This record gives sequence, structure tokens and C-alpha cells, in this order.
Amino acid sequence: MSPNKVFLAVIALAISAGILVSQDGPMAQYRAPADKIVTESLADAQTAWDRLAELTDRFPGRLSGSTNLSYAIAWVTEKLNNDGFDNVHTEKVMVPHWVRNSESAEIVGDVVQPLAIAGLGGSVGTGPEGIQADAIVVHNFDELDAQASKVKGKIVIYNVVFHQTEDPLAEYRQGTRYRGSGASRAAKYGAVAALVRSVGPIAHRTPHTGGMRYSNDAPQIPVASISAEDADKLQRMQDRGQPIAIRLRMGAQTLPDVESANVIAEIRGRERPEQVVVIGGHLDSWDIAPGAMDDGGGVIATWEALRMLKKLNLTPRRTIRLVLFTNEENGTRGGQGYRQQHAREMADHVLALESDMGVLPVRGFGFRGSPEATQIIRQIASLLGGIGATGVNDKFDGADVDPMGADNVPLIALDIDDQLYFYIHHTNADTPDKVDPGQLSKCIAATAVMAYVAADLPQPLPRSAKPASDSSKKQPRS
Amino acid sequence: MSPNKVFLAVIALAISAGILVSQDGPMAQYRAPADKIVTESLADAQTAWDRLAELTDRFPGRLSGSTNLSYAIAWVTEKLNNDGFDNVHTEKVMVPHWVRNSESAEIVGDVVQPLAIAGLGGSVGTGPEGIQADAIVVHNFDELDAQASKVKGKIVIYNVVFHQTEDPLAEYRQGTRYRGSGASRAAKYGAVAALVRSVGPIAHRTPHTGGMRYSNDAPQIPVASISAEDADKLQRMQDRGQPIAIRLRMGAQTLPDVESANVIAEIRGRERPEQVVVIGGHLDSWDIAPGAMDDGGGVIATWEALRMLKKLNLTPRRTIRLVLFTNEENGTRGGQGYRQQHAREMADHVLALESDMGVLPVRGFGFRGSPEATQIIRQIASLLGGIGATGVNDKFDGADVDPMGADNVPLIALDIDDQLYFYIHHTNADTPDKVDPGQLSKCIAATAVMAYVAADLPQPLPRSAKPASDSSKKQPRS
Repeated sequence: MSPNKVFLAVIALAISAGILVSQDGPMAQYRAPADKIVTESLADAQTAWDRLAELTDRFPGRLSGSTNLSYAIAWVTEKLNNDGFDNVHTEKVMVPHWVRNSESAEIVGDVVQPLAIAGLGGSVGTGPEGIQADAIVVHNFDELDAQASKVKGKIVIYNVVFHQTEDPLAEYRQGTRYRGSGASRAAKYGAVAALVRSVGPIAHRTPHTGGMRYSNDAPQIPVASISAEDADKLQRMQDRGQPIAIRLRMGAQTLPDVESANVIAEIRGRERPEQVVVIGGHLDSWDIAPGAMDDGGGVIATWEALRMLKKLNLTPRRTIRLVLFTNEENGTRGGQGYRQQHAREMADHVLALESDMGVLPVRGFGFRGSPEATQIIRQIASLLGGIGATGVNDKFDGADVDPMGADNVPLIALDIDDQLYFYIHHTNADTPDKVDPGQLSKCIAATAVMAYVAADLPQPLPRSAKPASDSSKKQPRS
Repeated sequence: MSPNKVFLAVIALAISAGILVSQDGPMAQYRAPADKIVTESLADAQTAWDRLAELTDRFPGRLSGSTNLSYAIAWVTEKLNNDGFDNVHTEKVMVPHWVRNSESAEIVGDVVQPLAIAGLGGSVGTGPEGIQADAIVVHNFDELDAQASKVKGKIVIYNVVFHQTEDPLAEYRQGTRYRGSGASRAAKYGAVAALVRSVGPIAHRTPHTGGMRYSNDAPQIPVASISAEDADKLQRMQDRGQPIAIRLRMGAQTLPDVESANVIAEIRGRERPEQVVVIGGHLDSWDIAPGAMDDGGGVIATWEALRMLKKLNLTPRRTIRLVLFTNEENGTRGGQGYRQQHAREMADHVLALESDMGVLPVRGFGFRGSPEATQIIRQIASLLGGIGATGVNDKFDGADVDPMGADNVPLIALDIDDQLYFYIHHTNADTPDKVDPGQLSKCIAATAVMAYVAADLPQPLPRSAKPASDSSKKQPRS
């Protein structure tokens, strides 16, 4: 190779590596603030993590209706005021009030064989004497239907395995079909209770709780999750021909709705303050979970994104509004309430970003909006090459901002590598040590850059002709 | 290279790979049976695993004094008879009878903050009202001593981190110093209870139980393990300056000793039946643990090793005796009892093999005996190249056969890659799914080959001039 050719090759390499020629195009003006945001977020990772730890240490188990959630809301509101944001306030929402009380289950027999369980949110209780019955294990609804005649008077156990695949969210959705409607499906055939294998991989015999719903065409029977290990054991017992009898005690009950609140804080836009970019996560968690990953991490990622912008004096044209939603886990009343209370502003909602898939390695964004808007989102994401978060796909998932899709608001979520998410999801092991400060800081940076640029673009993101939610195959997580 | 040189090089390679020239030397006659044992063990892996699953599914929580252990002993004895072994019987041993009863702990305050705990075996209870007191967190005994004046009336929390290193057993031993004597050390300064960080890595907020001992120079105070995550949280609370008050309730109590038993089965030696190679693991487990890895795996590995030899009609010169010990976990009365009851036969005990470090990847053996015997053990292990179990070191560890060391009996244990062992050790997550059938089958093969050859050698293993235990730095696990 001649020296000339070597020089050209080096230039070509440098260009392809983005060193010599900016490829930012229309985003060129946002390169400098984006880089500042990333640098500052990464440098301040420990502050964010410490805040997450304090939130989850002080107020674990922030389920709707709990004192823990009420105190968390008050604490967060005070902190947001201390941070000096604009328009800090709470917005009242009525939420369900389900309480677990004490619960236990065991295999009945000559020896003591406790099962690791977690009652499902919304379940009825068993009464103080509990329920004792023979059990039947099925792998799926087809097996249940095929054995319908054997179900009457029994406890039905759904042993639906969560496979570790490239797409854990797909496995999760499969599992939640059984978690959600398994009780009523079994009750139709006369079952007296149901146990559902935890929706998560085998790990440490940890039960994963979650929401369930009763249908109107069957009696309401108690339902709990059991650990994956216990489900496997019960399957083996049945396969060996051992009879299985189980005693289940659940003190669960649903009390009247109580008042809760979404928490709001803003950086007010410098030119079009009435136009809004929403960012947020949900402040509630399951009662058994400290809720560090779900969704303390999302709360902190969006909150700290706002703090980064304020710290760097980056005030965009439009308002960035942090919304910390209540009651995502067992009702999504926070997300619905926000949309209702801000119905007249929906046309001015430029973008709504939700962080609720954990704060693990961020790869980019899942976006639901018009093709034109998608192009712009891609351009914004291209500013995040330094942290590897440039990917944009159409797999938006976010239960709290989802209702705004019906108003044609473009919706976006962080795209997270969630291979580890479902190990601790909805369990008592969802503690802050599971969150890596570096990964959290990248989520903060990605959120802040996306929100800032989307709020500062000369024109709002173009909307679809029809509501975005109509054209998508949305299937929000429950 | 000339064709001649190529040929020679190929030969040299083949020799070094053990293809053309057997390097078995004095073990040449054992190559064929060893290969048969390995092949058959690996082919029959599922049978062994199924037996492990059945043992732990039927009789989890096999703590000394429990019905679960009594039933397990009866079940195993029947199965051993069905397997057709010689001299199947039980040998009575009196064992401690500690019971956990119900227990709970929580951080006292405005919000509900349960701690994940497991009372330590041997601990006293709190009385029905429980104990409520302020808490102080220390990293080690030095910190405890330095803060002695602040301890009176408090609950002492030992936050001793289990680091994931190359040598988890060393970390374990460090942790068990606090688990074992932390209560009495704290009580000397007037503490009212103690909580000890679980001796294991952070994983799923799972408490690890284990044994403890009271010293005679301090009041007996209740002591429980807490999950690693909770220990970290309490540390953070103290570091933030938050006051910590804890309410602890433990129904634990020690009842009078009860009868239990070691279980014995043999393949009687064809020439010198009075000379014995012992192989075994312990049948008891902690009450909260199904005890698949600790030590159902060791029970099955040694039991199945005996079954393999019987299946292959391999009857050695000497007797191979399977001993399934009782009460390893909280007393080692099984191991002590075996030695006492067989005191007059100790001179005829050629070798004693224990499997109690999990059934994970087997690398070879840890041996405690004379240098001459070590050489022979190395030769036997060299027969296990096919499963990578040829290593021999002097790190013997095995609490049940350890007492025989005082009688100069050569002692041996499987050398296991135990990186994963302490994640589930002494927890309710020690379930059979954690055991890989292939790894279990290699442990079976290694045990069977070692036992068979040691029992069949023309001469017994040469003994040390003085008791092996005197010359070693033994430190058996508690």
C-alpha cells in the first residue's frame, strides 16, 4: 500500500468511526449538550444510586393503599421541591387497596413440606381455616380443559415454565396469561383454589407476585404464585403417581379504594411551556418488593434526568414534566388518572417517555409513533453512540403512558437488555444491590438526552394521522 | 520434517495423550473396570438424579429430631435393602433436637420493613413477646470490641461480607466464625440479641441458616442470620445516620436429645471382608433446606457408587461400606458415633471417603494420609482422566469421617469446584434442580472408582506413622 493509500484508509476508518466527520446532521446543534449530559450523568452515577437505595431502603413495599407508598410520595415530593424544580405538586388519584395479610401453604402429609408462595394481587382470601384439597398439576389451559372432569373440588396448579430466551418479555406475557386468568379458568370447572408457577426463571425458590383478575362467569377462588422449584417438585410428585394434598391459607382481602397521587415536577419550557414532554416511572411497587428495579430504577432514572438538565442549565423550548405514577402494579389508575386530568392538554403532549423495564444495559428506545417521528427519534438516539444507546425499534412497552396513545401522543420507552430483569421481578429480592450504578447512569443519560432534544426541537414531533395505539399491536404489561 | 520425523512426532503426541501407551503403571489392571464404572455411571445419570429428587421431594428439612429425618432414614433403609446390598442396617445415635418454630424480624418504624431471617441452629428463642431494641452494625469483632460501650441493651448486627473468590471455602470459614460465636461475643458486652449476615454471596435475599455455639462466659441471647441484602441495607441505614430499631421474634428451643441412626449398607469383600473402605455423606439437612446439594447429593453419589459396583459385579478384595451419617449439621454425632461404635475396627479401616461439598464439577480428591498413600491415591485418580477428576491435593474436608483421623485412618473427599455451592447452602433453595445429572454422575464415577480400587489393592493403603489428624491443619466445617 502506498503512503497515500494508507492515509486515505486511515481517513476512511476515522470517518466510519465518527471521529473526523460529525454524522449528526440535523442534530448537530445537540451534540454538545448531549455529550455534556452523558458525561455528567456518568460522573454522578453514585448520587443517583444512593437516592435509589434511600428510596427503597426507607419505603419498601410501596403497594397502593399502603402507608409505605403514602410516605414515599411525601418524601419524594419534598426532595423534588428541594431539587428546585418548577411546579412540584401531587395530583390525587383513587387507587385499589388490596392487602395480603398472612399467608402460607404446605403439602399435607406425614412430613412438613412448606411451599414458597406469594398470593396474587387482587385474590380473595381463604378464610381463617384455609382450604385443604387434593391438587392437580397442568402445563397449560389445554391440559386443564382436557382434564376438566377431574378438577372439581381440587386445587389447580399451573406449571408454565419460564424459558430463558432472547425475548424474556414474550415469556413473561405467556406466563401472565395464567397468572391473570388462571383462577377463573380453573374455577369454571369447580376448582377451589389455584396456584400458578412464578413468572420468572428458576433461581432461589423465590415466589413472584403479580396481578390477577376474576372473570364474571366463575366463582372467585384464592390464587397464589408458587416458586418455580415448588412447581417442578409438584410436577414430579404427580408424575411419580404420588397423591398431592395441599393446605392453603391466605388472609388476602380487597378494601375500599383509597386516595393516592401522581407526583409531578417540571422544568418549564423557555418558549412553549404549554407543550410538554412527559418522562416518568411508577412509584408504587408490590407489597413484598423493595421495588428497586421495578420501578424505583425508572423513578430515579427519569427524576435524575430532570436533575441533570437543571444542573447543566439546559432549559428546552418546551416543558419537560416528570410524572411519578401511582398504582401501576395493580390498577394503572395513575396512568389513567393522569390522562383524564390532563385531557385538554393531550394535543400539546409532544412525547411521553416511560422507564419501567428495569435499569439494566440500555440499548436505545422502543417508539410508537408516525414514521416521520420515528426518523427524528432515530436522529436523537444517534447522539447516544457513546453509551451504545442508539437503537430504535417499534417495541414500545409502558403501561402508565400507554393511555395517552389513544390521544395520538407519541410514546417511547427505554429499550433495555432485560435478561436479568425477571429473576427478581415482583419478588422480595428486588433490592438496590441488583442495580448497577453505571447502568443506571446510562439510563439517566439516555432519558435526559431524548427528553431534552425532543422538548427543544424547532417543531414538535410529527404525529400519526390516526391514534398511534390503533395501528400498533400493543399489549401493555399488567 | 522427514516422514520419519513426522511419524515419530505423531507417536510422541499419541503417547503424551495416553492413546498408545497406557500410563496406568501399577493401576493397569484397574483400567478396564474403571472405564466400565465411568461409562455406566454417566449412562445412568438420570436414575441417580431421580433418586435424589425423590429423596429431597419426599423428605425435605431432614434436621436431627425431625419426623422428616426419621422417615428419610426408614425410606433409605428400605431402598438399600431393595438394592440387594449386604448387611443393610441402622446404628443408633442420640442426636440434638433443636426446633425453630415460627420466627420473624422487622425494622420498627412508620412503615413495614420485614427482614429475611433464619434463626441459627442452637439458638434460644426470644419468648413470645419478642425482643425490641436499637441495633448497631459492625463489620467484624474488632469493630465490636472498639464499640463495646455502645452495645449494652442493643441488637448487634454482624455485616461480614462473603466475597466471591477462588476459594469460597475460605470465605465460608471466615463467615462461620461470626455465625458460630457472634452471639456470645456480643452478649459479653450486654447485647440482647445478634443478627449475622448470611454466610454466602448476595443472590436472592435468601437467609442461610447454620450452626452456632454459646460460650460459657456470657448470657445466651437469640441469634439469627439475615439475608446479605438486608445486612447491606442496615449498614446503609447506619451510615446515613438513621436510627435502627428491630423487633425480633424467635420460637426456637432445644428439646431433649432423641434417637436417630446412621444407615449402613455394604458390598462384602471377597478376600478380606473385615477390612473396610467407608464411603458416605450425611442424610440430615437443615430444617429449612430440602438438602439436595447439602448433602442429598453426597448421599446419592456414594449410594449410587455402591450400586454401580454391584450392577457391574465388581466385588473387591475388601468390604466397601456405605455410611449415611445422621446429624452432621448440628452436632456431627453421626460421625462421632460411627467411630465409637466401630472403635475396635479402626485398624482395619483402609480409607474413609466423604462427599459433602456438593455434587458440582469434580476435579479429583482431597486426601489426608501418608506420602506413600498419597502416591497410590494419585495413581488411582489417574484412572479418571476421562472425567477430568485426576487431581489430588491435601485439602481434605469432611466432618463425618474426620473423627477417624484420630485413629490414623486415611481420609479422602471429592475435590469439587464449589463456586456455586454457597449460593444455596443451608437455604430453602437447596433443591434438586440445582444439581446437574451429568455432574452428579461424574461424582458417582469418581467415588466408585476410588472406593473399588482402594478396596481391591493387593495391600491396604500404607498409614502414617502417627495419626493423620495430628500432622494436618484440619479445620472441619461446622
